Amino acid sequence: MPAPDIQTIIFTAESLRQFTTAVFEHFNVPHEDAVLAADVLAYSDEHGIDSHGIARLKTYCDLLKAGRINPKPTISVVRAKGSVATIDGDNGLGLVVGPKCMELAMQKAKEHGSGWIGVCNTNHYGAAGYYPVMALKEDLIGLSMTNTTAGVVPFNGAEKMLGTNPIAIAFPGLREPPVLIDFASSAVSYGKVEIARRKGEMIPEGWCIDKDGYSTNDPAEMIEGGALLPLGGDKDGSGHKGYCLASMVDILTAVLSGANWGPFAVPFAIHFGPSNKQVGKGIGHFFGAWDIEGFRDKEEFKRNIDEWIHTMRSTKPQPGKEKVLIPGDPEREAYQIRMKEGIPVNKEVIASLEEIATVTGIDLRRE
Amino acid sequence: MPAPDIQTIIFTAESLRQFTTAVFEHFNVPHEDAVLAADVLAYSDEHGIDSHGIARLKTYCDLLKAGRINPKPTISVVRAKGSVATIDGDNGLGLVVGPKCMELAMQKAKEHGSGWIGVCNTNHYGAAGYYPVMALKEDLIGLSMTNTTAGVVPFNGAEKMLGTNPIAIAFPGLREPPVLIDFASSAVSYGKVEIARRKGEMIPEGWCIDKDGYSTNDPAEMIEGGALLPLGGDKDGSGHKGYCLASMVDILTAVLSGANWGPFAVPFAIHFGPSNKQVGKGIGHFFGAWDIEGFRDKEEFKRNIDEWIHTMRSTKPQPGKEKVLIPGDPEREAYQIRMKEGIPVNKEVIASLEEIATVTGIDLRRE
Repeated sequence: MPAPDIQTIIFTAESLRQFTTAVFEHFNVPHEDAVLAADVLAYSDEHGIDSHGIARLKTYCDLLKAGRINPKPTISVVRAKGSVATIDGDNGLGLVVGPKCMELAMQKAKEHGSGWIGVCNTNHYGAAGYYPVMALKEDLIGLSMTNTTAGVVPFNGAEKMLGTNPIAIAFPGLREPPVLIDFASSAVSYGKVEIARRKGEMIPEGWCIDKDGYSTNDPAEMIEGGALLPLGGDKDGSGHKGYCLASMVDILTAVLSGANWGPFAVPFAIHFGPSNKQVGKGIGHFFGAWDIEGFRDKEEFKRNIDEWIHTMRSTKPQPGKEKVLIPGDPEREAYQIRMKEGIPVNKEVIASLEEIATVTGIDLRRE
Repeated sequence: MPAPDIQTIIFTAESLRQFTTAVFEHFNVPHEDAVLAADVLAYSDEHGIDSHGIARLKTYCDLLKAGRINPKPTISVVRAKGSVATIDGDNGLGLVVGPKCMELAMQKAKEHGSGWIGVCNTNHYGAAGYYPVMALKEDLIGLSMTNTTAGVVPFNGAEKMLGTNPIAIAFPGLREPPVLIDFASSAVSYGKVEIARRKGEMIPEGWCIDKDGYSTNDPAEMIEGGALLPLGGDKDGSGHKGYCLASMVDILTAVLSGANWGPFAVPFAIHFGPSNKQVGKGIGHFFGAWDIEGFRDKEEFKRNIDEWIHTMRSTKPQPGKEKVLIPGDPEREAYQIRMKEGIPVNKEVIASLEEIATVTGIDLRRE
């Protein structure tokens, strides 16, 4: 979770959901789809993933307004075989195409033991973690990946060739909350570098390179033409492993579905158009689900997950560290706080929302 | 690939295969299974993965001799549903159970579009990359994971709770060789730390902690009661991501199949018995396969993989770096050299093979 910004104002979760829904409807997204898209964005804001929630609403609006995203997509099956299928998202909002395709993966899992949906011709789908959480509700193990705008170099490379390509997967517990894994395959997100620049702080070795490919501790040097490094960073950190992960996500999401892969991924930004060369349609997602009951009794599995959680939590911490967390703990902690105290929204983000309010005539209320 | 040891002697690939096969047969492994197990080990030696090939033969023999591995397992289906199943490996060699279960995953993929096999009651299965390579031969995308003896701390932890838990996946090209991904979810392997100690070298920050949980640059301090860090290492390196990966592998391989997970994984070592507490049977593997044809035309997919490879290779390298590689290049390069010049075997490993030769009466020939 990035360090909280000092310049924030509190909104209720419900006011942000209502605003987001109304705004999507203004841009001709059908009501049910607008509610769904707002739910995906709200998941991020409510769980402390500030980079993937309402902070991105302006870009979705810009792209809808410019006709670069289709508000009323007709999702179609390109190809299917038993537990797998490829879906064409008809250039819809990833926030709408994504949940519908995850549903399909879940249906397939119930029928065939597992379900796998590759998606092409889609757009930014919010936080990767939203999708496996959908699967938890039906006692399935869910998985999601997406490729994204290129911002990361391959190991040893000096040019942006891959996205921050996240992976998310979740496992249900019985009495314990789920193990919820959701992370980008880059060393850090672009947002972390931006925050460091805003605060005037230097950044650690292994996060970024500058425009000439040299390692840099200055966030400005990354932002002005540099690039992010893959998880692991350099040779000493096993940066080739982060490159492997980003490659795996890029191929499963985009090459397998017929979307744009690598540096050709359609950028999620109004000021950058698609690459001159297109190698597929839109960007790509990959959704998966496994039926636990196909492998073992689901109660037993969930009881074992509880025990796994207790075991990891009981690890002696490193000196000076408070405790060992379970993947998903930071998001759960943020949720507890935010559902009680409200959602802190950055003033820059509020300015972007006020701009949307002016254009659409929709009231931005704090509660 | 670890730096080559200076103290090596060259063996032909065929002589090592013959020796390995005969040795497994000596310990009552049926001929066909012995050939298969030798093939899995040979894959590592022939591709430069020195830590996972014949260097481990002594441990397999010790465990077979001590009755801790069953030379004649009867593999059985515990549970199945469409594209998924759980297999009990009957405490057999992972080198035999593994390939048979990967075959099952591949059969399921051909029938159901994808195939997923969880395996409990199994043992060390060699290099994770062997299994997806099996799938390539039938134009499937293959995936393998295994949990291993605990040697890695969870993020912020000071105790070994997870294995180096590797992930491997491979994608076939048309004219290009495959994209072959195979990496441990720890920052580095134990072998790398051992090599540094042997050479009297210090190790970088982010690889290890000492017995008290403090970061250390001294390989001896890790080996004497310390532990490996997850990929990413510390907070600055996003070590929580490596912990997430190791957790994902541990749960999919062991919790889902009913094997021993986390710190309870049965150690692959003769001098350490299983943990007093057992939470399942043996260790766990997880194999997967997707039928490319279920998603898109396989020729198109492979042509796109070729283009993906060309694109990544053409990335401008960082200053001082030669070029950007494709996952699998180091193994392919080693294979080219070794199939021509032979396999360099470390003198310590040769001593262990000579010991086996003495006990079994099987000749160790260099060609």
